[in-house]
Amino acid sequence: MALKRILLKKERTVLVDGRVRVLSDFEKYYIDPSKDFHSKYGIIRKEDLQKKAGSIITQDKEEYTILDADFIDDYKHIRRLAQIITLKDIGAIIANTGITRSSKVLDAGAGSGALACYIGMIAKKVVSYDIDERGLETAKENVKNLVLKNVAIKKGDVYDSKQISEKGFDVFVLDVPQPWKAVETAKKALRVGGFLAIYLPNISQMQEFVKALPEDSFLIENTIEVIEREWAVDAKRSRPATKDFGHTAFLTFARRIR
Amino acid sequence: MALKRILLKKERTVLVDGRVRVLSDFEKYYIDPSKDFHSKYGIIRKEDLQKKAGSIITQDKEEYTILDADFIDDYKHIRRLAQIITLKDIGAIIANTGITRSSKVLDAGAGSGALACYIGMIAKKVVSYDIDERGLETAKENVKNLVLKNVAIKKGDVYDSKQISEKGFDVFVLDVPQPWKAVETAKKALRVGGFLAIYLPNISQMQEFVKALPEDSFLIENTIEVIEREWAVDAKRSRPATKDFGHTAFLTFARRIR
Amino acid sequence: MALKRILLKKERTVLVDGRVRVLSDFEKYYIDPSKDFHSKYGIIRKEDLQKKAGSIITQDKEEYTILDADFIDDYKHIRRLAQIITLKDIGAIIANTGITRSSKVLDAGAGSGALACYIGMIAKKVVSYDIDERGLETAKENVKNLVLKNVAIKKGDVYDSKQISEKGFDVFVLDVPQPWKAVETAKKALRVGGFLAIYLPNISQMQEFVKALPEDSFLIENTIEVIEREWAVDAKRSRPATKDFGHTAFLTFARRIR
Amino acid sequence: MALKRILLKKERTVLVDGRVRVLSDFEKYYIDPSKDFHSKYGIIRKEDLQKKAGSIITQDKEEYTILDADFIDDYKHIRRLAQIITLKDIGAIIANTGITRSSKVLDAGAGSGALACYIGMIAKKVVSYDIDERGLETAKENVKNLVLKNVAIKKGDVYDSKQISEKGFDVFVLDVPQPWKAVETAKKALRVGGFLAIYLPNISQMQEFVKALPEDSFLIENTIEVIEREWAVDAKRSRPATKDFGHTAFLTFARRIR
Repeated sequence: MALKRILLKKERTVLVDGRVRVLSDFEKYYIDPSKDFHSKYGIIRKEDLQKKAGSIITQDKEEYTILDADFIDDYKHIRRLAQIITLKDIGAIIANTGITRSSKVLDAGAGSGALACYIGMIAKKVVSYDIDERGLETAKENVKNLVLKNVAIKKGDVYDSKQISEKGFDVFVLDVPQPWKAVETAKKALRVGGFLAIYLPNISQMQEFVKALPEDSFLIENTIEVIEREWAVDAKRSRPATKDFGHTAFLTFARRIR
Repeated sequence: MALKRILLKKERTVLVDGRVRVLSDFEKYYIDPSKDFHSKYGIIRKEDLQKKAGSIITQDKEEYTILDADFIDDYKHIRRLAQIITLKDIGAIIANTGITRSSKVLDAGAGSGALACYIGMIAKKVVSYDIDERGLETAKENVKNLVLKNVAIKKGDVYDSKQISEKGFDVFVLDVPQPWKAVETAKKALRVGGFLAIYLPNISQMQEFVKALPEDSFLIENTIEVIEREWAVDAKRSRPATKDFGHTAFLTFARRIR
Repeated sequence: MALKRILLKKERTVLVDGRVRVLSDFEKYYIDPSKDFHSKYGIIRKEDLQKKAGSIITQDKEEYTILDADFIDDYKHIRRLAQIITLKDIGAIIANTGITRSSKVLDAGAGSGALACYIGMIAKKVVSYDIDERGLETAKENVKNLVLKNVAIKKGDVYDSKQISEKGFDVFVLDVPQPWKAVETAKKALRVGGFLAIYLPNISQMQEFVKALPEDSFLIENTIEVIEREWAVDAKRSRPATKDFGHTAFLTFARRIR
Repeated sequence: MALKRILLKKERTVLVDGRVRVLSDFEKYYIDPSKDFHSKYGIIRKEDLQKKAGSIITQDKEEYTILDADFIDDYKHIRRLAQIITLKDIGAIIANTGITRSSKVLDAGAGSGALACYIGMIAKKVVSYDIDERGLETAKENVKNLVLKNVAIKKGDVYDSKQISEKGFDVFVLDVPQPWKAVETAKKALRVGGFLAIYLPNISQMQEFVKALPEDSFLIENTIEVIEREWAVDAKRSRPATKDFGHTAFLTFARRIR
């Protein structure tokens, strides 16, 4: 993947009902600087797109700023087959299991590889399983595009512990419909003291998981829901955004104790 | 710091109003295995405390499990002069700024060094400033105990950009009362495209910060509040925990664009 | 207004991707039983619509249930010029100010008269002011349709205490952009001990109101935000609804003390 | 019960670490004006306590304001055997079922009679059942003290429809551990179109209720959780209160359709 860049365009002042209204929000584009960029306001040529980060590009009276894409920008634009895990839940998984640059992390189902890619930028090693061929292909493409040499996407069913060969892992994240079927795998793959993180949309499923987890092998640390509330704050007002802050999932963290 | 261990004791069955009641929660102790441990149930000898992780220790009819302390355990027991930043907010800062193992992170005020220590386990380099002597001492002690060679605790006032020499940083986290006074420092210390993260308890202060941030140098990405809600889930019931889930802070993420 | 009725139609089983899927939700129609009702499934004749509450009507293989409309059904279908106050906020106003059937309640701005109509079904007397002609007309129409003889919709500017003649009221609800301009009116209209309820979308406005309220005349009881979270619960799963639960407003309750 | 009054004392300015700090909060006492009141600051004589509402009483250099107790003040001080239902949940029940001054409301278990007393101030008639003798006694005392002639507290088990004789009620509020056992009673006591409101702390219990409710007799409208968040707002700052905003219960509203 060619290195991407971020093109910002500050909104113009506009006339609304006869009054000049300053639109201070930025429009943000994630672009390939090796090609001319066609916006609704006109064409920006690749020579301009390759200027130094922070440069101002003026085109047809419109002003743009060009930046390098960071990992977080690339991450937000990875290929996806379905909804990917939110940043709020990724942050919670990292902070509750203590993932660091020396961690070995196992994850299933891989989905589009979003979590594997994100954790791969932090941890030492990530192995991500799925059984869906299309997902595996997308996940592998994302790993390749982000040049993550420490992330392996593998085909395998975590409900069958024989299909998973990993051992001594620090963290195992399960985002599968029936995580109770993967407890044997978790016991095999995690080192003693390692964390099992369960991601499930329904609290009723989470209760089923908690019921099924063997107390002599795992210690449940906590079950949480992380709610991220966006605020609209500007020079004149401050209030919660009126838009959606929908539910994603509940998270349970358990620890292998034996 | 000697390596610490975690000692778990499964609660006994107890008689409540004539009925046997199984208390399935664990008591968790963070201990120094080079000394005998005195619990309220009796003494556990250091020979036992040095057994392999996952071993069961039986003492006075009580059963314990011994584990190695992970980073997250050590982190939860660092020295603190006051309330330290919560894991929910650390997770949000990491996930919203895209901190990875190649990131260089600047942070002020250091406080007890909690954020610096946590990020130090992930990022390439962390520099943390404060002006309070007692805080600096505690922060340095925590960095030393966690053997974080990539974390520097420095004395300096971030409101005065001349006191801060760092340049080209990827992320700058400001947990100070008047972050608007550190905007010049942020502009100097961050690379173009780098993230400024503001942590403030009051939304009124955040509005003051948003008002003061120069639009030609910084792009505000979002202002959020992260609410972590704990659930009580067991075999029989599932409901939000009745205990406190108090407010900590609002977070604003902005990006240096020039 | 002719008495309205509620027509419920239980959803059919449908074929989705070759599988039979039972849709157990009801479709709900608020109808005028003096006319035939044209649904997308066919016509239901007025003779059927006038059957006893709870009767089943079968039409073109579809099954319907007919009910009388309650006040709450009529309320949900009042005429509106803009978004009306939510039931969650109405409930909070009633419960925090202790509105009972002996209360006299003043309210501004009337808007479409929604709050006035709702409170009018509970309280002894409601007077609702607005300055907008179109709103006043709509509010009066709603009051008439709901046959609320104890609700008066009046034209007047609550920012000017001379325009409001009411005295000795128990509760005064202010849903206006600059409630600090109506403090003099509140002092005049409320009895000593009476409640002032302020409804404002922005917390920054609320802070401005709190700053402006004279401490020697009013005691602030509390400032709250009421969040109503809908859950999807059925035989198989339970989880928060993924849809929107947006912000409406903050509420401050104060009491006239002198 | 003698009529009660509210005595407010504005906090003094105090010295904190050598600085004068103005404490602007009020201390609030719910008092019997027929007796002298002994505060920690001295004695206020009954002659003063009987002054007109809004009067200032000066005693030992301290300044007090005297008010009449409203229903909401009396309500907040009713006798209670255990935690009573919160105002946020009462408001939600009223607003979701459309209780008005013409409503007939049935309720069980009565507990200390809190909900019955509150609704009794609004509705035409309230009948409240419980099986616990001590609760019944307390509830009856509260009803008597608040002079609620339209509220009847009765002994009876709502799990047994034969014990409940009421018919044609508009709303039936169930705050009992196993509401699914009271479905037959609900069907008997509610008119067609009437509302059944279920109050349960655990979502797992609510799911059990939803599963058990016969679809041919009841239509489930919604399941909600109401969260009331208190804010600390003053001249200088605005932020969510750091104190507890614990979970109370989930509410499900269903309607008898046949």
